[in-house]
Amino acid sequence: MSANGKLNVAILGASGYTGAELLRLAVSHPDLRIVALTADRRAGEAMGEVYPHLHHLDLPDLVAIDDVKWDDVDAVFCCLPHGTTQETIAGLPEHVKIVDLSADFRLSDPALYETIYGGKHRATELQKEAVYGLTEIHREKVRQARLVANPGCYTTAAELPLVPLLEKDLIEHGDIIIDAKSGVTGAGRSPKEANLHTEVSEGIHAYGIATHRHGPEIEQELSAAAGEPIQVSFTPHLMPMNRGILATSYVRLKNGHTADDLRAAIARRYEGEPFVKLVPQGQAPATRHVRGSNLCLIGVFADRLPGRAILVSALDNLVKGASGQALQNMNVMAGFEETDGLSAAPMFP
Amino acid sequence: MSANGKLNVAILGASGYTGAELLRLAVSHPDLRIVALTADRRAGEAMGEVYPHLHHLDLPDLVAIDDVKWDDVDAVFCCLPHGTTQETIAGLPEHVKIVDLSADFRLSDPALYETIYGGKHRATELQKEAVYGLTEIHREKVRQARLVANPGCYTTAAELPLVPLLEKDLIEHGDIIIDAKSGVTGAGRSPKEANLHTEVSEGIHAYGIATHRHGPEIEQELSAAAGEPIQVSFTPHLMPMNRGILATSYVRLKNGHTADDLRAAIARRYEGEPFVKLVPQGQAPATRHVRGSNLCLIGVFADRLPGRAILVSALDNLVKGASGQALQNMNVMAGFEETDGLSAAPMFP
Amino acid sequence: MSANGKLNVAILGASGYTGAELLRLAVSHPDLRIVALTADRRAGEAMGEVYPHLHHLDLPDLVAIDDVKWDDVDAVFCCLPHGTTQETIAGLPEHVKIVDLSADFRLSDPALYETIYGGKHRATELQKEAVYGLTEIHREKVRQARLVANPGCYTTAAELPLVPLLEKDLIEHGDIIIDAKSGVTGAGRSPKEANLHTEVSEGIHAYGIATHRHGPEIEQELSAAAGEPIQVSFTPHLMPMNRGILATSYVRLKNGHTADDLRAAIARRYEGEPFVKLVPQGQAPATRHVRGSNLCLIGVFADRLPGRAILVSALDNLVKGASGQALQNMNVMAGFEETDGLSAAPMFP
Amino acid sequence: MSANGKLNVAILGASGYTGAELLRLAVSHPDLRIVALTADRRAGEAMGEVYPHLHHLDLPDLVAIDDVKWDDVDAVFCCLPHGTTQETIAGLPEHVKIVDLSADFRLSDPALYETIYGGKHRATELQKEAVYGLTEIHREKVRQARLVANPGCYTTAAELPLVPLLEKDLIEHGDIIIDAKSGVTGAGRSPKEANLHTEVSEGIHAYGIATHRHGPEIEQELSAAAGEPIQVSFTPHLMPMNRGILATSYVRLKNGHTADDLRAAIARRYEGEPFVKLVPQGQAPATRHVRGSNLCLIGVFADRLPGRAILVSALDNLVKGASGQALQNMNVMAGFEETDGLSAAPMFP
Repeated sequence: MSANGKLNVAILGASGYTGAELLRLAVSHPDLRIVALTADRRAGEAMGEVYPHLHHLDLPDLVAIDDVKWDDVDAVFCCLPHGTTQETIAGLPEHVKIVDLSADFRLSDPALYETIYGGKHRATELQKEAVYGLTEIHREKVRQARLVANPGCYTTAAELPLVPLLEKDLIEHGDIIIDAKSGVTGAGRSPKEANLHTEVSEGIHAYGIATHRHGPEIEQELSAAAGEPIQVSFTPHLMPMNRGILATSYVRLKNGHTADDLRAAIARRYEGEPFVKLVPQGQAPATRHVRGSNLCLIGVFADRLPGRAILVSALDNLVKGASGQALQNMNVMAGFEETDGLSAAPMFP
Repeated sequence: MSANGKLNVAILGASGYTGAELLRLAVSHPDLRIVALTADRRAGEAMGEVYPHLHHLDLPDLVAIDDVKWDDVDAVFCCLPHGTTQETIAGLPEHVKIVDLSADFRLSDPALYETIYGGKHRATELQKEAVYGLTEIHREKVRQARLVANPGCYTTAAELPLVPLLEKDLIEHGDIIIDAKSGVTGAGRSPKEANLHTEVSEGIHAYGIATHRHGPEIEQELSAAAGEPIQVSFTPHLMPMNRGILATSYVRLKNGHTADDLRAAIARRYEGEPFVKLVPQGQAPATRHVRGSNLCLIGVFADRLPGRAILVSALDNLVKGASGQALQNMNVMAGFEETDGLSAAPMFP
Repeated sequence: MSANGKLNVAILGASGYTGAELLRLAVSHPDLRIVALTADRRAGEAMGEVYPHLHHLDLPDLVAIDDVKWDDVDAVFCCLPHGTTQETIAGLPEHVKIVDLSADFRLSDPALYETIYGGKHRATELQKEAVYGLTEIHREKVRQARLVANPGCYTTAAELPLVPLLEKDLIEHGDIIIDAKSGVTGAGRSPKEANLHTEVSEGIHAYGIATHRHGPEIEQELSAAAGEPIQVSFTPHLMPMNRGILATSYVRLKNGHTADDLRAAIARRYEGEPFVKLVPQGQAPATRHVRGSNLCLIGVFADRLPGRAILVSALDNLVKGASGQALQNMNVMAGFEETDGLSAAPMFP
Repeated sequence: MSANGKLNVAILGASGYTGAELLRLAVSHPDLRIVALTADRRAGEAMGEVYPHLHHLDLPDLVAIDDVKWDDVDAVFCCLPHGTTQETIAGLPEHVKIVDLSADFRLSDPALYETIYGGKHRATELQKEAVYGLTEIHREKVRQARLVANPGCYTTAAELPLVPLLEKDLIEHGDIIIDAKSGVTGAGRSPKEANLHTEVSEGIHAYGIATHRHGPEIEQELSAAAGEPIQVSFTPHLMPMNRGILATSYVRLKNGHTADDLRAAIARRYEGEPFVKLVPQGQAPATRHVRGSNLCLIGVFADRLPGRAILVSALDNLVKGASGQALQNMNVMAGFEETDGLSAAPMFP
């Protein structure tokens, strides 16, 4: 930490949506100081040119990653694409704490990584060291970590309601179906035909059915919670909103347990947590009620089918699903209040 | 049929979205003539006042239902709210053919109707007579019918992919999970806070979890196809688009069958059908690709979970999910070409 | 015209939105036959791969423009980018009628073309020959034309209400202010960051202020109507909808004329026109009431400022603002009913 | 002010969007304490029932206005409908500071009020006392005020760019045309057919042309700045977004002044202001770049028409256009930092 008691932070890949969102949150943080912003293709530009909504803020200009002065940097948020991130992070100085928002360090099994991402991992020592940053579940490990792999947006939405149920052995392992609906910011800012307003608005479709890379990531964490390998059905959908993920999860109850038992287990697991909340019984979580916030709302319902239950979880994919949880993890790593920079209320409508 | 060879049609409840949509379709129909439009609360107004997009058309003014001259009317589309529809239809002259878009005659079991809709049916003879108008499944009965109960929007989307699989005994009966996403027109034109633009846009939520009235309707048809009572899990979601339903259905395969077997069964069942289409393998149906049309697109996918498959179906809830299927049924009942008035291509973007 | 009495049509540049929209309309046309579709970069693909909403139609595959067999082609819709279009059209056989949807032949003054588009015109003979296809204004010339320059979307919306007022000398020439709001399809299907859903939705901005290329095009037609050079203020805005342009035009009344005089002049000018309609007094045109149709709605209002009036015009930029008017022009050129393929009602909601 | 150094605040009419937005902002304010929330029709409910996005906050339940304990209340935000507000405010104890978000005290001329709002004002003494709270223009009066009339959303957007130009006599008085585009939150939360998602999305229309009540309010402030009565042309449009107003204003330059002169005058007028910002030359303000913030962005452009200029201003109608400016005014009245509770960055996308 710096002489002034502030944590000096660099954001690598600041020209993407997660980088911009980190800045939005960081300006409300009492103890962070942004000292470097990188974006290789836009180096030399002011942040306000890349993101006019940040134009009025006093921020450093974008630089190439090679031009960062690392001595001034205490911590890094890494918002680079997966695949190239691992080597960049391997090259960072030892004294720098890192929260990585890419997928590069999320899978702890090198063989699984190779299968899913189509190539050998090139920083396997770091892969071993990295802590999976689902904060509410791995808080103590995060506190000790130098490198945190920030979870994916879908995986955070799916794991938060399911982990407590598996820890307490309340649901069957072989029958977990996750139907997720995401806003478009999850696809990033790269110009692609599929993400044009004209192609996305007024419609919905499923994609990556049975093949999306967040499937194995969800399985890794659910398996850890269950104590045995678990496979899940996971289907993401793209829908016409900017922010938000809603995960509707269908589970089979074990040993005569009821939806109320699931609800109670979730309530206990997250008691006192500032960001994970059960909605009142009978209500259903809506993504619009968490927009812009680090909240994850969870609802539990008995299914029409006897012996089954339905879990609905809602979060903002750019906040609890990305930059907000990254900041939450950094708060834990730096010994700050976990809610610093994250206490603004959701924005509705 | 009239002297001029045209079918003289009245639309009861023409001031709602399904009434307006029937008019949109009917003006392209070579053999329909609109002779009466009713809307009790807006009687006396021109249709163009209620729906300015129809202002340039030559349409009769809205009248109270009691002012319809039934001698001129060969057929009726009934777009009235459920509950009151049954008595209205019971009072129509014998010579009038009816497609009812309400829920009043969809459930054939009086006891089930009473449970779900909270009151005794008041036209039980008609309830026995009514034919469930999922056209591709019950075409021959529709052809003979005087009264057709037009299926619900969710039910059409769910039933079209599932019925062939149950007819051929390809999937387990106790393990069908239907996750459906609907546009807002499904909620009608009544002013409700929950359907304001400010409340609906930029968000998604589930509703009617385990209790939505289309659940029993789906079960009735799937049970008929399976030859034994079937219960399903059904969860609808409201999302920010006007038209479209996407149903993602999760099923367990029977007897070593594969997703390809499901695909083949669906292909055979709907071979030659003008409105039900399998999308090419590997593609996923999108609601935007059926907008404004009577099409239902279906995709079939192997699940990540061994022994399971995923079906995705897409339709426009106002067309194949309501007014389009109603017109399709009327075409069958009147001996017209089934595609009359329904052959316009979808509108994209 | 072909032996079968049908007009054999090729669409050049069929992979863009205007090409797809022409196909949507053409399939309802009794006397058009699509014989070739070109898209150089996607040659070899089926149209259903490029536009899944057209997958169920029986259409020729996309080919390179050099592979079109011109002997079979009676007429062409040219949907290519401006700049390259002029040479393509110059190379087409003499017997082919052409409606060009690009900007290449809209400006009749070579010097103005060079200023606005930054290069000499490379088909100046054709430029002289081309007829500006604002159908209601230039119908007789269109009837005789071999090459029609289809007007821009903004220009159609601005010109239809203003031309009659200038023809009748009802408004001042130096004080015409056009504030236009457009949906995103006007920007085409090319992937650009600025047109992503994430960048467009939930916001509005002006662009091309004082510099948009439709300014001079509007001025050319208004000058012709007025009989002297006219300059206008023209400001386009991009807003989160797919289809539609609303033009709000502010004018100063001449010689004590009133808004009612403007209204009467517009009514007379377009009496009997199937596609240009005044809305009832006191109502305001809305883009949603023309969606998918070839209609242009016009409203006229007295301003708060004495001696001024406000005109509001609404059209679907892909239909009356592009492909619909193109088809309307082709109908006129080919001697068909002008409404053929264009009589479907608007789609609302 | 309370013993604890906090300002104890009541929000009257907390169940509308401006009330909820005040709460969203207030929870980030270091020195406000919410002590009462009223909503007569929903008295007894928790705020989290009315607005689930605020459910996790510790807020008082809604009460009827008659049940507020005024001894505990230092200040009031009044978010009640216009018309009834004036009598409610007249009945408040003397010690309470008030920011009124209704239109009741915005017009200082009783005769004009009567004409526009169709009835005599029933608190004319207060009407004289009230200060019009366009903070940047009337800051010193606001500082002394007990009752501030918070400006309308359209008026704030229109006045901020125009007032400096009139103060410096840079533009003609008789030729100001304001074309404004608003999101749907401006229409409030009352269920009306016209504001349903189905009616608003995918379209735009003008409304209240020449008759909208914000016209006279704009004129009052522009007249004050100009030192003589000014009349303007003002046309609002409703468009499919939730938050934001964009005002495009067309002006005629006086005495050979240029757009650059306008730009310079605006820059000087708002130098050092935290919330009013000129965008860089050549850029155009976008509503999405101020979403959720109290910023107003202004751009200045030379028009195509010689001697004219175009001003574009963008703000969030719920923040700088309502609750944010209300809080800004309260900060000034209470002697707080003017940016307290208002310094969060805009949310984009």
